[in-house]
Parts: sequence; structure tokens; C-alpha cells
Amino acid sequence: MKTVFSKRQRALRAELTRLGLGSLLVTHPPSWYYLTGFTGDAGALVVTRRGIALITDGRFVAQAAAETSRVRIVRQQGALAVAAGQFLRGIGAGSVGFDSSRVSVAQFESLRKLGGKQLRWTASPGVVEAFRARKDADELVRMRGAAAFADQVMQSAFKLLKPGIRELEISAEIEYQMKALGGSGFAFETIVAAGANSAYPHARPTSKRLRKNELVVLDLGVILAHYCSDISRTVVVGKATPRVRQWHRVVQEAQSAAIEAVQAGASCGDVDNAARKVLARHRLDRYFTHSTGHGLGIEVHEDPRVARGQRQLLEPGNVITIEPGVYVPGVGGIRIEDEVAVHPGRTEVLTRTPRDLIEI
Amino acid sequence: MKTVFSKRQRALRAELTRLGLGSLLVTHPPSWYYLTGFTGDAGALVVTRRGIALITDGRFVAQAAAETSRVRIVRQQGALAVAAGQFLRGIGAGSVGFDSSRVSVAQFESLRKLGGKQLRWTASPGVVEAFRARKDADELVRMRGAAAFADQVMQSAFKLLKPGIRELEISAEIEYQMKALGGSGFAFETIVAAGANSAYPHARPTSKRLRKNELVVLDLGVILAHYCSDISRTVVVGKATPRVRQWHRVVQEAQSAAIEAVQAGASCGDVDNAARKVLARHRLDRYFTHSTGHGLGIEVHEDPRVARGQRQLLEPGNVITIEPGVYVPGVGGIRIEDEVAVHPGRTEVLTRTPRDLIEI
Repeated sequence: MKTVFSKRQRALRAELTRLGLGSLLVTHPPSWYYLTGFTGDAGALVVTRRGIALITDGRFVAQAAAETSRVRIVRQQGALAVAAGQFLRGIGAGSVGFDSSRVSVAQFESLRKLGGKQLRWTASPGVVEAFRARKDADELVRMRGAAAFADQVMQSAFKLLKPGIRELEISAEIEYQMKALGGSGFAFETIVAAGANSAYPHARPTSKRLRKNELVVLDLGVILAHYCSDISRTVVVGKATPRVRQWHRVVQEAQSAAIEAVQAGASCGDVDNAARKVLARHRLDRYFTHSTGHGLGIEVHEDPRVARGQRQLLEPGNVITIEPGVYVPGVGGIRIEDEVAVHPGRTEVLTRTPRDLIEI
Repeated sequence: MKTVFSKRQRALRAELTRLGLGSLLVTHPPSWYYLTGFTGDAGALVVTRRGIALITDGRFVAQAAAETSRVRIVRQQGALAVAAGQFLRGIGAGSVGFDSSRVSVAQFESLRKLGGKQLRWTASPGVVEAFRARKDADELVRMRGAAAFADQVMQSAFKLLKPGIRELEISAEIEYQMKALGGSGFAFETIVAAGANSAYPHARPTSKRLRKNELVVLDLGVILAHYCSDISRTVVVGKATPRVRQWHRVVQEAQSAAIEAVQAGASCGDVDNAARKVLARHRLDRYFTHSTGHGLGIEVHEDPRVARGQRQLLEPGNVITIEPGVYVPGVGGIRIEDEVAVHPGRTEVLTRTPRDLIEI
């Protein structure tokens, strides 16, 4: 494992040189794991051209020492921004990059004050995130494992569905299985949305009981060895109406079109549009109220965003979800979601649960 | 429920007047729930002296309309900071308060640019958080319920402990029970830390199996009706050594001293110090590597912070944890945690599981 982290640190250092930065202040915990293996969630990481230091409080000092190697652990006293500012001044850092989209206005004020006058601050958003968006071989292995795990959990979730069971009972059972089978957690709160609730893309499970012939949207993700998975399927507990059957067919077609559009060099906006065009042809585009997909990895939502108008180009190593849907208020919703990895000259769908409408 | 939210909005408006602010941009989702009942997690809330508006994206528009009343729902197009800036300009907002500890440097740049020149921005951190720290009657009812629920889950967790079972199996079972019994979620990832793992205050459950006579720290919290609970107990699966017995006695004494120190008008630093002094008397203070406690409510970590040197005074309505511990690297740790509510002239311990060392 150590070689993976030191390789990533080396690549980041080359990037710092390219950007003309003496050091980078990394304030986002998932990026700490990516660079060092540290899994705590309080502190700040300082990467310089020569070394790497983790400033963290007493709760995490022993854990940081156990999880990392060749990282200087600095015990934080007082507020984080104060400690980080003082540390940067102490090591005589010159030009410091910081993630302006993650550092708050108040933190930045403290950093500037405590860092002193010799520090030159540069807004450098998303530097580590850009590396994380291009998964390396180690990460792809883990993501395949997490996706296979999600497939397995989805298959056993189907078996729970029957009239009378509550949304909350199903989600509790799903999350229990994730942990009991060895997952280290859920990538997000499991969605089990039945009947009219399925019209809310981000519904929380309620005490509502499933009724015969109702739509159920299942959206789940497990974390395995620090990497997230994410899959959605829509099921009818009984028999689908012709209307539901048509909606599902169109969403499935939209998803296939978007998956087809995925390739290195394609823009994220074009992939989004591929799904939207199919829905529009059937006049269902106004019921598709969110983006087509998102990157995932250590976090369940990462770069790149697969949304309308996004000009960012897909690259080998990207792993994204493709998850079009239709949501008809008061009636119900349908979503089909899979994970797609981008390789040079080809793509790989990581989740493999069949996509056809399931009637149980 | 509507009256609770409108009462809170009224109190906030009076505060805006006092602060000389025409409107407040609220960017922290738990505060949206506190003020409106909206449970989504993307968007921004704008409170003016006359009304309240929620800017949120397509995924949450229908949900926001169902969950709130008398809130203007504005569908977000493009980036949030852009949409919020344009909205504030559109309503002719004059002086706008924003939470400088939650708005990023990059967001603030967009807000300033899109808001135009007639907006005057004022850093106003923690305005809603200050209200949330003083729980109202409705909130105290929910927090008592959540605490009683946590007690119940802790009691049944004790029954799971036996040599051979894995930390992860125990945590999965605990979290399953929380959901199956009607909790809406976990306040945080359940901690089940056995043997040497218990020396990490924030350990994640692993596949390690419990062994006879080992220490196990259990730290769990359930969310009930949107409010969090938080309780920790330390158990020996077998018989405690004299050393463990002594550590536990000292931590228990430190906790009692801190709970005794809690009262309206006492400073948070003094409460922290009450625990630390007991540990110091037994030369265990250097093994107590975190703060004595934290506020909790809609979030599991809220104001006030019960930490070394904190001058903030406790007020009626505060609900805080008191959770001293000792953590001896390589050997093990002990933590005892309860929730305490501050009332005028008295306190109330919300969690009621016995605190004595439990040998199972």
C-alpha cells in the first residue's frame, strides 16, 4: 500500500512544480486518504515539494501514526486554521495553494493572519480532486469489488419486496447486509421509495408500507476498502401498468444512449444530452429533474459531473454513474443507474444487475 | 409543526433587526430544517425581514413544497452561489449577512460578483446556530425521546457482546436495530472498539473478533424525529484487571465531577476542567486526548463546545455531552458519555444507562 500513496504524492509534487506552488494545503479528508491512507476527518494536510505533514487533533494522532508512513504528524492545538497558519509560517512556506472552494471565508482570514506576510496564497481549487478523478489500477480493482458487492446487495434486496413491508424495514435490512457481509459502510443513506414517494429523487425511507402493483425505486451503495459503489433499480411489486412499462422502457433507452455516448474525449454535457434527447423524443424530458450522473470513488459524488452543458472531457480512469430517471409528482418515479469506467478506447460497465423492469 | 417553525422565523427576524441586517443567507442544511422543516441538503435559504425563500435544485423542489409552508421555493439553475447572488439582487436586498465559517472563498467571490454593487455583505457566523444551541420545548421533547432510544439500543448491544463476535457484526446489528425500531438514522457511524482498538477515540469497527477479558468501547447515537442522541459505555467481556477497574473508576469520577459542574452560567471551559482535574489527580490526564463534550441537537456536533479554555457560558436550553476518557496506546481505552440538558436552576441527564463498569 505504501507504494500506492508515495506514487500519488510524487505525481502531486510534479503538479505543484508545474503550478509554481511551493506547497499545497489540502483541507478535504477524502484527499488525505488518497494521498496518505489516513482515514480521520479532522485536520489539514500540507504537501510541500520535499515532504508531507498532517496537522490533526489529539483524537487522531495515534490513528494517524498507525495508518500513514513517512508523514510528519503535527498535533493541533487550538483552532485548525490557526494551527495550519502557524505551521506554514514555521516551515517558511512561500507560495501556498489552497482549495478556495473548500476553505471558508473565516478560515482563510485566520490563515492569512497567522501565516504572516511572507506567505503568498493562491486559490488552487480541485488539484487533488483532478488526480482522484482518474482512477489508478489499484483504485479500479477496489471499485470493481465495490460494484460487485452492490450488485449482490441489490439482488438480495429484491427478495425483501412484498406488499405490507415498510420502506424503513427494507432499507434497514439492506444496510445490515452491507455491513454483515463485510462492507465498511454505506456510500449514502439507502433510498427505498415506494408509490408516490418514488417521485422524489432523494426520498428518505419512511414507515410507508409497500402496496400491490406499486413502483419501488431502490438506490444503494456500499463502501468496500474505502471506495464507493452506487446502483439504482426500479421494481414493481406486482404488475406494471402500460404507462409505467412505457416510462421504464424510455428511461432504459435513455440510459443505454448515455452509456453508448461515454468514451474518452466525449464531453460530459454530450453524455448528459444523449439521455435527455431520448426522453425528449417521448416528451418525458421535463420529468427528468436532475443530472445524468457523477463521478465516484473515495466519495460518492466526485468529479466529473455529468450534467447539462458540462464541457469537461471524459478521460481514461474516470468512473461515472449514468442514472437518468422520470419523476411524475403525485404518481411515481423510475430511475436506472449503473457505473461506467472509461478506459483508453473502450468503456466498462461495473454494475451488472439486469436493467429490465422487474415485476415481483 | 407549522407554529414551531414560524415562531423560530419570528425570533430570527428580531435578531436580524438587532444586527442591522436586511437579510440573512443561511447555507447550512440543518439550519434549514430548524427554520422551515425542509430536509433536503442542497440549496440556500434567504431570510428577509418580510419573508423566506429556499433556492434549491430540481431534485428537491417537489420535496421542499411538500415539507414547508409559506416558504417561497426558487428552482436553482446553474451553480448555487450564482443563483443565490442573482436572487438577492433580484429582490433588491441591501445588507446581507452570511456565515463566513460556512461560505467558501470561491462561493463568496461568486456571490459578490453576481449580487451586484448594491449588496452590502456582512460576515455573520453562527446566527441560526446560536438559536439552535438553546433548545425549545418541542426540541427537548424530541431529544428526550432520542436519548431514551439510545439507552434502549445500548442495553440490547450489551447482549451481543461475547468472545468471538466481530466488531463489525456488532455495529451492523446495532444500526439495524436503530432503524428497525423506527429511528430515522444514525447520528454517526457506530463505534465498537475492542482491545487495543479502544485506545482510538474515533475507531471504526473492524473485522477484529472480541476476546475474553478485553475492553470494548461502545459509542452510538440514533436520530429520532430529526434529533440526535449520543451515548458511550465501556464494557469488559469477562473480568476486568485491577488496572482497568481503576481507570474506569477515575473516568467515572471525572464524568460525575463534570456533570456536577454543568449549570446555567458556568463556562464550558470550567466544565471541561472539572473532568480534567480528577484525571490529573490520578495522573491520567495525559491519556485524555479530546474535549469533554459538545452540544447536540439536529446535528451530533453543535454549539456549545465543552473544551479547554472555552469561555462561552452555558444557558438554559443547551444540551451537551459529557464524555471524558482515557486512551492508553497499545493497551486500550475507556469512555463514559451521557447527555445533559441545562434548565434554569437545574440540569437533567437525558441518557440513563447505568455508568458502572459492566463485566459480561
